[in-house]
Amino acid sequence: MIIVKTIAALREALDSSSRIGVVPTMGNLHEGHLELVRAARAECDTVVMTIFVNPTQFEDAADLARYPRTLEHDLALAESTGVDIVFAPSAEEMYPEGFATTVRVDGAITEVLEGAVRGRAHFDGVATVVAKLLLAVLASVAYFGAKDAQQVVVVKRMVQDLGIPTRIAVVPTVRDGDGLALSSRNSRLTATERERALAVPRALSAIAQASETERDAASLRAIGDRILQDLEVEYLEIVDPDDLSTLTTVHAGALVVVAVRVGRTRLIDNVSIPARPSPPRSEP
Amino acid sequence: MIIVKTIAALREALDSSSRIGVVPTMGNLHEGHLELVRAARAECDTVVMTIFVNPTQFEDAADLARYPRTLEHDLALAESTGVDIVFAPSAEEMYPEGFATTVRVDGAITEVLEGAVRGRAHFDGVATVVAKLLLAVLASVAYFGAKDAQQVVVVKRMVQDLGIPTRIAVVPTVRDGDGLALSSRNSRLTATERERALAVPRALSAIAQASETERDAASLRAIGDRILQDLEVEYLEIVDPDDLSTLTTVHAGALVVVAVRVGRTRLIDNVSIPARPSPPRSEP
Repeated sequence: MIIVKTIAALREALDSSSRIGVVPTMGNLHEGHLELVRAARAECDTVVMTIFVNPTQFEDAADLARYPRTLEHDLALAESTGVDIVFAPSAEEMYPEGFATTVRVDGAITEVLEGAVRGRAHFDGVATVVAKLLLAVLASVAYFGAKDAQQVVVVKRMVQDLGIPTRIAVVPTVRDGDGLALSSRNSRLTATERERALAVPRALSAIAQASETERDAASLRAIGDRILQDLEVEYLEIVDPDDLSTLTTVHAGALVVVAVRVGRTRLIDNVSIPARPSPPRSEP
Repeated sequence: MIIVKTIAALREALDSSSRIGVVPTMGNLHEGHLELVRAARAECDTVVMTIFVNPTQFEDAADLARYPRTLEHDLALAESTGVDIVFAPSAEEMYPEGFATTVRVDGAITEVLEGAVRGRAHFDGVATVVAKLLLAVLASVAYFGAKDAQQVVVVKRMVQDLGIPTRIAVVPTVRDGDGLALSSRNSRLTATERERALAVPRALSAIAQASETERDAASLRAIGDRILQDLEVEYLEIVDPDDLSTLTTVHAGALVVVAVRVGRTRLIDNVSIPARPSPPRSEP
C-alpha cells in the first residue's frame, strides 16, 4: 500500500488507464468504511482511500478538535482490506495560502435538515472538499455511505452539475449488532448514552414497519417521536430521496431521516421506506 | 471537423490519450480567437473549441440579447484554422433543470474592476462555466486571451484551488492596425465611436512608454486620464498582475487595466508595464 500526502504524488502514483475507485473518508475507520472499500475492491483495479478531516465542514471548532484521529490504526485497516493508495493530505496541502474557491450547491437540498442545523457553510465545505478530492483522483467510481444521506444527495447534485467524470456509488449503512449505525462519533458515547441512542434505530425500524399499512407521514413521524421522546431530537422527517422535500404521504424509497443529540454527541441516521409487500393473490 | 452539442457526445469524440488543447469562446470569432487556436494547434494533438454564450455571466439581459451570435461563420473560421472538435452546447445542456451548483472565487480578485462594475455574479458565472467546460474536455492546456486579464487571474485561481488538471495558457492580445484590441463588441461601434475608442490603446501605450522614466502610479494614471477625457471611463488602474491589488509604484509586469463606455458599448483593454530598458553603459 502506498501512502501519499500531496496531490502531485497522488497523481504520480495513479495509473490513469486503470479503473480507479475512491473511498473518501475522514479516517477513524470502522466497518462502514471497510464496506465501502470492499465495494470498490470488487469493481475496480485500483482502490484509493482519502483520509482528511476537512476543517471547512465543521461549523464548531470544538467538534473539529474532538473529531477522533487514528491514522496508524486507519492505515493498518486500509491495508488489510485491500486499499492500494492512501491519500492523506495536510490542511495546508488542501487549502494553501491564498485558497479562495468555494463550490456551493444552492437550494433546498443544502438548506434543510443538516443545512438547517449545521448551517449552509457545512455543505459548502463538503461540496468543495469532495470536488477537490474527486478531481485529485479522477476515479471511475466514488463510494459513499448511505448513512450520510443528505451528503450523498448534495454530492450527486454537484458531480452532475459540474460534470465531474466520476460515478457516485452508495453503499448501505452498516449497523452494530444492537442496531446502532456505525459512526466515528459512537466512540464518544458512554455506555448509558449508547443504550439511550438505540432509540434511533428502533424509531426508524418502527416507522419502516408501520409504513406497510400507514402512508400518512405525520402519523408515521408520531410513531418515531414517541420512541425518541427521551432524546433531544433535532429533526425527524420523511423526505423525497432526490430533492429532500418533506412528504405528507410516503412512498417506497422515501427517506426517513433523523438527527439527535445524546449528551455531547450528535448522531444521524436514516432508513428507506420499503416497497409495500405485494397483496396476497386471491384465488380466481 | 466534428461538431458536438452534448457533453456525452464530446467525451465520445475525444481520445483521452492524445494531448488535448481547448479554446473556450463565446463565438463571434475574430483574429484574437484564431491566435488562441494557433497556439493550441502548435502544442497539442487535438484542438477543441467551445462556443457558448454563457447567460450566467451577463448581469444585463439586454447585453446578453445583443451579444453577436454568428455560428455558421464561426464554424467555417474554426475549421480553416485547424480546430478538430467544436463543442457548441445549448443553455439547457449546460444548465439543465435542477442545476444548482456555483463555483465561486472569493476575495479582492473578483471584487475589484470588472467585479465592481458588473457585480460579483459575473465572476461566479465565469468560474462556474469555465470549470464545467474544463471538466467536460479535461484538456492538457486551455488557452485564454490576455485581453480579459481579470478573467485569466480568476480562472487560474479557480483551476489551482480545485486542482483541475489543465494548464492555463495566456495568449497576447491581438490588435487591429489602428491599435484597438480585437473584441466581439467592436462590431457594435459606429465609425465615429471607433475613432473615439482609439483613445483607449493610445492611453495604454502612453502609460507604458511614460513608465520607462515615471514609476508613480498616480502620475501615470493622470497621463491616461487626460487621453481618455472624452470617454466615459469606468476604471483606469495599475494593478499587481497576480492579486490585482492597486499599486502606488509600478514595476515591470504590473497591469494597466481600463474599462470605458463608448456609446452603448463597453470596452476593456490592458497592457503590461514593460521592463525598464537597461541604462546605457558608461565607459569605464
